[in-house]
Amino acid sequence: MPDWLDQLKWDSDGLVPAIAQDHQSGAVLMLAWMNRQALELTLEQQRAVYWSRSRQKLWFKGEESGHAQLLQEIRIDCDADVVLLQIEQLGGIACHTGRRRCFFRVLKNGEWQLDEEIIKNPSEIYR
Amino acid sequence: MPDWLDQLKWDSDGLVPAIAQDHQSGAVLMLAWMNRQALELTLEQQRAVYWSRSRQKLWFKGEESGHAQLLQEIRIDCDADVVLLQIEQLGGIACHTGRRRCFFRVLKNGEWQLDEEIIKNPSEIYR
Repeated sequence: MPDWLDQLKWDSDGLVPAIAQDHQSGAVLMLAWMNRQALELTLEQQRAVYWSRSRQKLWFKGEESGHAQLLQEIRIDCDADVVLLQIEQLGGIACHTGRRRCFFRVLKNGEWQLDEEIIKNPSEIYR
Repeated sequence: MPDWLDQLKWDSDGLVPAIAQDHQSGAVLMLAWMNRQALELTLEQQRAVYWSRSRQKLWFKGEESGHAQLLQEIRIDCDADVVLLQIEQLGGIACHTGRRRCFFRVLKNGEWQLDEEIIKNPSEIYR
């Protein structure tokens, strides 16, 4: 195990949250989770690899949709328990709903309002 | 309890991760955690209030340092289990190490390298 991986503080499930930020626009696209292997593979393959908590397996982002995230930079925070990725989002769609980013709901007047258009219908993304 | 708070998917500890992004520069400053009360107070007080997992109490960001985060916007992601705040960072320092942001370590040549200057010495921030 590389030394740089040992310096992270993995939680009791062996995970850390990883934020994906568009390296050009600066938009925060999504947050997912990584275990050691996912982070190691992210560096090796130069694309975001997460750990799917719902499926309990590695998630090679874009393997189905084609919307892979090409790695530009990896950072960690002061507590070494959060990862921040700068990525290039292929297809311009990070969210499984077909939107640019997962943060498409904003709080206005006491309710969550949707303000990001659906670029591509999920039924066309996941065939 | 307001309806908008019920729509979040709080984890088994009653928490969600919350990302603080500088509303002007787009820089991701930090990630901390919120419980229902913290998020409700964030809206009420129009400044970031987190839940400190280490201290197990509400953390009114900036209460000691003065480096409060004034709220500009609250978003949630597609799974409703991550919060994204747009904030104005008072003092231009989000990190307890005296740096602009907590993500001051970048992976280069297999090691974490520091690339953010210390704007203010922590001993001067926390007296």
